[in-house]
Amino acid sequence: METCIPKWSVLERSFPGPAAGNPYLDIEFSATLRHTDSVREVWGFYDGDGIYRFRFLPDLEGEWSYVTHSSAPELNGISGSFCCTAPEQGSRGPVRVHDTYHFAFDDGTPFLPFGTTCYAWTHQNAELRRQTLAQLRDSGFNKIRMCVFPKHYDYNLREPELYPFEGSPSKGFDHTRFVPAFFHRLEDCIQALGKLGVQADLILFHPYDRWGFGNMGREDDARYLRYLLARVSAFPNVWWAMANEYDLTSKTTEDWEYLAHLVRRRDPYGHLCSIHNWGRFYDHLQPWVTHCSIQRVDFYKTTENVELWREQYGKPVVVDECAYEGNINHCWGNITAQEMTRRFWEGVLRGGYVTHGETYTHPEDILWWSHGGKLHGESPRRIAFLRKIAESLPGNLSPAREPEWSTDYYWDMTCGAIGEDIYLFYFGAYQLSFRVFDLPRGRRYRARLIDTWNMTEEDLPGTLEGNFRLELPGRQYMAVLFTQVKEEL
Amino acid sequence: METCIPKWSVLERSFPGPAAGNPYLDIEFSATLRHTDSVREVWGFYDGDGIYRFRFLPDLEGEWSYVTHSSAPELNGISGSFCCTAPEQGSRGPVRVHDTYHFAFDDGTPFLPFGTTCYAWTHQNAELRRQTLAQLRDSGFNKIRMCVFPKHYDYNLREPELYPFEGSPSKGFDHTRFVPAFFHRLEDCIQALGKLGVQADLILFHPYDRWGFGNMGREDDARYLRYLLARVSAFPNVWWAMANEYDLTSKTTEDWEYLAHLVRRRDPYGHLCSIHNWGRFYDHLQPWVTHCSIQRVDFYKTTENVELWREQYGKPVVVDECAYEGNINHCWGNITAQEMTRRFWEGVLRGGYVTHGETYTHPEDILWWSHGGKLHGESPRRIAFLRKIAESLPGNLSPAREPEWSTDYYWDMTCGAIGEDIYLFYFGAYQLSFRVFDLPRGRRYRARLIDTWNMTEEDLPGTLEGNFRLELPGRQYMAVLFTQVKEEL
Repeated sequence: METCIPKWSVLERSFPGPAAGNPYLDIEFSATLRHTDSVREVWGFYDGDGIYRFRFLPDLEGEWSYVTHSSAPELNGISGSFCCTAPEQGSRGPVRVHDTYHFAFDDGTPFLPFGTTCYAWTHQNAELRRQTLAQLRDSGFNKIRMCVFPKHYDYNLREPELYPFEGSPSKGFDHTRFVPAFFHRLEDCIQALGKLGVQADLILFHPYDRWGFGNMGREDDARYLRYLLARVSAFPNVWWAMANEYDLTSKTTEDWEYLAHLVRRRDPYGHLCSIHNWGRFYDHLQPWVTHCSIQRVDFYKTTENVELWREQYGKPVVVDECAYEGNINHCWGNITAQEMTRRFWEGVLRGGYVTHGETYTHPEDILWWSHGGKLHGESPRRIAFLRKIAESLPGNLSPAREPEWSTDYYWDMTCGAIGEDIYLFYFGAYQLSFRVFDLPRGRRYRARLIDTWNMTEEDLPGTLEGNFRLELPGRQYMAVLFTQVKEEL
Repeated sequence: METCIPKWSVLERSFPGPAAGNPYLDIEFSATLRHTDSVREVWGFYDGDGIYRFRFLPDLEGEWSYVTHSSAPELNGISGSFCCTAPEQGSRGPVRVHDTYHFAFDDGTPFLPFGTTCYAWTHQNAELRRQTLAQLRDSGFNKIRMCVFPKHYDYNLREPELYPFEGSPSKGFDHTRFVPAFFHRLEDCIQALGKLGVQADLILFHPYDRWGFGNMGREDDARYLRYLLARVSAFPNVWWAMANEYDLTSKTTEDWEYLAHLVRRRDPYGHLCSIHNWGRFYDHLQPWVTHCSIQRVDFYKTTENVELWREQYGKPVVVDECAYEGNINHCWGNITAQEMTRRFWEGVLRGGYVTHGETYTHPEDILWWSHGGKLHGESPRRIAFLRKIAESLPGNLSPAREPEWSTDYYWDMTCGAIGEDIYLFYFGAYQLSFRVFDLPRGRRYRARLIDTWNMTEEDLPGTLEGNFRLELPGRQYMAVLFTQVKEEL
């Protein structure tokens, strides 16, 4: 009986093949997949123990056939078929750019990234990985920034359990020989995230390295990328982050362009692809950059600039580092939960997205930002509250412009809008006791008072129109949501 | 017996003269004052009821003589003399620029401005003025921004008790005829401030006007300035602020240059002189600008730029508006006490000065920012605490530079320094649980932990040197003061 798999789930096929020599170098292996309306080329990989595999993520229902190609005769010309059925409940395919500044799944469902950061969680022990997944299940995050390679930095001085290449720190590593167990674990982690509805924003290179993986040279970098992409491109919840802090590595712009184009060519599915900076932004106008992945630019203001970057790049803006809630030494690692929550609101109301991270000191140096484990901060619940509100809106927020009918009621506050249907005002760290609003004439609005810190919502009675005053509680972190009342037909 | 007055107190001489016609227009009156080592010209003024006066602030002890000059024969050629004795305790003369970026009294005593703002307090009733003075006596402010003219703006809609010119809102005002009672009150207020040790930062023009005083034309502006300066220049605690928000008035740069030069010529004492902006800075490089009087430039960051402006202008930087502690509608009037205090620390540690203001809603619309009265906020005590610390230091703070021996310990925090003797670190809204410091080699320091919000100071035991770690309480608004231990001889 023919295999059937649901749309947007992973087909994997395994074949015995040559184990002698160095199969990672010596053997080419790929497959062509055909559907009435589509032909796809996918690259396979050697998974050790004489086993070769290819993986495929079908995005069309119906009959598919495949045929393999290889430099090894026993792996060449193997054909087969399978059928692709309707997707499973909740399976929506990869996330794409949608509506210029936003995201949606392949099935059209909007995806609003509310991410977090656990750079080195896959390199921790099983118990810690289990905790991380449990914590993600119970929190409101739907994207995670994570490195393929292990991390060397303050609080990150232990050896990882596995290395991507054969060898050891003392003997050195052979970059032409991969360690399948390393990649099995990574894949297990990505798939576990997928089950939780979490996108794996996979960081392909980063500078925090003592093993030489950050500085292998172009040929080894390319071989690593080809191998990794052959293995994990078929997972629907993968995003490519070319780098964490690209400008702290030894690679040149030419290197990045070469590697990014390689990623685009070797990824049959067009997963999202970004490159994150330390001091200087990469040129996010490059066509392979699907969205801006942005580092904080200032001790005080980063997500306040989302509007500017939207205009500058014409792409979705994801502030992937806006500092971390925590109490460590470094300036980027000790903002309060209130400030983290504020940064989210400032960014989201401007039509952008923000990523969380947490760096509280811990007796065993287990900091969520790198190791995962447990969250100790107060911001994640508030971020989940914001996510709930943002997802309940009837469209994507854009930064509200000074309306032409208004004089001075808008310019000094943060306001996200959806056409003239929704105005979501946010007062940040200010403590207003009242506010005068000035909404479009000839329309009526309902108002909801939102305490973004205490996570309460209160529908105000009646409707409002034009220029009016609203009493506010004189507390920080308040917001007001105006929703236009549509006339009943 | 000859009159004797202490140095830096006001000599006033009165003379009967013509009362017919318009003495404000018709009669010129001035005096020349002579000391062995000095000759000074001062302008007199008509004070109504047929009385002419001149005032003089002697800055040299010993014998002085004077002779008057006037277009009216009976006021011309009157001579007299007086002696000037040592200043009274606490009398230090006018404040001058000192050490490029700082201030000192004429006697050399450093003056660190910790100002507040009550724009229209002299226009309020007697009880409110009394309250304002009582409040100033009990708070730590030593400078006040205040307008000569009454103010028209939100919360400022009542008529003032007195007008500077004859006339009324309904009949119009005769800008050639002054109202002495208006100026008597202003002078009483300035002198009462002087007794409290408070500098009167006198705003000569401002845009918040419904009486036409802000838009009189150059000739009337000049006559008003000549009259005002003849009256109040001799008060030692006067500073000239050419404008509050010059760029919201109808005056041109040529007007401002003309009027500012007039002020410099008509002020025999060289009082401090500034011009404050709304959106665009005036050219503070103009020689008549003694110090930069700066408006907030951003919703989040203003006093953080003090360092930049010091370099740009080479003059003292006073951030005279960094927003107001309060809860009103407008964005500039609803920051928290914590944030106001933070803005002070950020500015002062960078070698600048900051001015307070307060805008809490009030049942009778009495807001300190404009009317004076009582302070309701929590920042004034913290500002006084900072003032006490700043005044206790053995010199003027400058922004600490990244030291050459250090790698990355300084760049991400605020630090004011006095040579290598004092390092005052401030962690603002961050909540560090520890910090690694890197002080100059070969020197030993004592450390004092300062909670800038709770106003506590704790001397840490022993001495510290070089690169070391200090535990911090993980709270916001902490500072650490390092004082070099000088070897005993």
